[in-house]
Amino acid sequence: MVGAGPGDPDLITVKGLRALREADVVVYDRLAPSELLAEARHASKLIYAGKKPGMHAMSQEEINRLLVEEACRGNIVVRLKGGDPYLYGRGEEECIYLAERGVNCTVIPGVPSATAVPAYAGIPITTRLMASTLGIAPGMRAPGKEKIDYGRLAEAVDTLVILMGVSRAPQILGEIAEARGWGEEAAVIMNGTTPRQRVYRGTLLQLVEKAERGLLKPPAVIVVGKVVRLRDKLWKLS
Amino acid sequence: MVGAGPGDPDLITVKGLRALREADVVVYDRLAPSELLAEARHASKLIYAGKKPGMHAMSQEEINRLLVEEACRGNIVVRLKGGDPYLYGRGEEECIYLAERGVNCTVIPGVPSATAVPAYAGIPITTRLMASTLGIAPGMRAPGKEKIDYGRLAEAVDTLVILMGVSRAPQILGEIAEARGWGEEAAVIMNGTTPRQRVYRGTLLQLVEKAERGLLKPPAVIVVGKVVRLRDKLWKLS
Repeated sequence: MVGAGPGDPDLITVKGLRALREADVVVYDRLAPSELLAEARHASKLIYAGKKPGMHAMSQEEINRLLVEEACRGNIVVRLKGGDPYLYGRGEEECIYLAERGVNCTVIPGVPSATAVPAYAGIPITTRLMASTLGIAPGMRAPGKEKIDYGRLAEAVDTLVILMGVSRAPQILGEIAEARGWGEEAAVIMNGTTPRQRVYRGTLLQLVEKAERGLLKPPAVIVVGKVVRLRDKLWKLS
Repeated sequence: MVGAGPGDPDLITVKGLRALREADVVVYDRLAPSELLAEARHASKLIYAGKKPGMHAMSQEEINRLLVEEACRGNIVVRLKGGDPYLYGRGEEECIYLAERGVNCTVIPGVPSATAVPAYAGIPITTRLMASTLGIAPGMRAPGKEKIDYGRLAEAVDTLVILMGVSRAPQILGEIAEARGWGEEAAVIMNGTTPRQRVYRGTLLQLVEKAERGLLKPPAVIVVGKVVRLRDKLWKLS
């Protein structure tokens, strides 16, 4: 179970890359950087198991079964996921499924999008004096899971990072604005850490306007808080 | 500005390792894995700039000046930090200092301790159904920064991760218990991702007792929330 990192293929870990080079089978997600597949020199199968909102190449149950099936044939299987497998990656579900069936499985953490995408955009998510607490939340919620209270979260932390939130941005940013005001600073970073990275920065109000004009597209990371200001000093560094 | 990851030297990124191998000078922190220094083959100087609570090898101002000085001699300087430079790493302060003096600087994010240390201990910090929101906070606060309200944070998120919190664990866990009750599940992971990793798991009350008996020692990551339970199923995987 390997975290591929946020997009820049060189942000995979040394341990993750080694696993990929030893793999017999690679089962990869939509957000795993495609450049990394070339590193799976030894693999006889590269299987796409990606999901888009509303469109699944494979269901989670099919992915689980595939992993067990390939492992039981004696293959070293790398499950390659964008970001980190345990931070909104559903890696824990797949690992539990494998463990319950007696399949050996190792987790190799990845650089999460939640921390690295802002960094590449010149935004440190914590700073010693401006932002000591951090909240991370998804923009979507699982069916059956209770609604996320973005307003309460925004009241409790200095910096707030929202992942997979673009399609519901007006509503989410609106809830945050009730806690922090429409003038609060924020940024939306699309395709972060890749050559296609694009950053919109502005107040919550300005970003909602951008969202309503259809300018915000996934994959994107939303950052809310004073730290966004530091982009003025730091954006050239990545 | 390179994040070295949480402890396991193989969790450095490919990009970070490459920078280390090209460095003329390496300025490293106490929590940067020492095994990585052997990778700095080309470097003529390895400078320790570590800090322990109350004991500084160098002040932040001295570190800042050293980085500028070495860079201005034409050296490629790698500033190697444990975890991620922008997640409680003060990397942003050093980057701003460098940028203001015209020194070119690139940030290479690292795998954060906040996400990877729990993973190695078999604890996924988010799961689709149990824990969608995550809060991260430091156990210490900078002089001049307002007090962190751990209770409010614990009310707003599903999983709470506290870094550098061991020395103040009884107070911090007590504040969290006011919000969640003393029976709330938690874990303290010491020397995470290294061969010396040690995990204490229990209720907030049990962990406070451990802290009062002097059993909790830094560096440690504290995780609070239902996700801790998944360690039963996942701890063997790392």
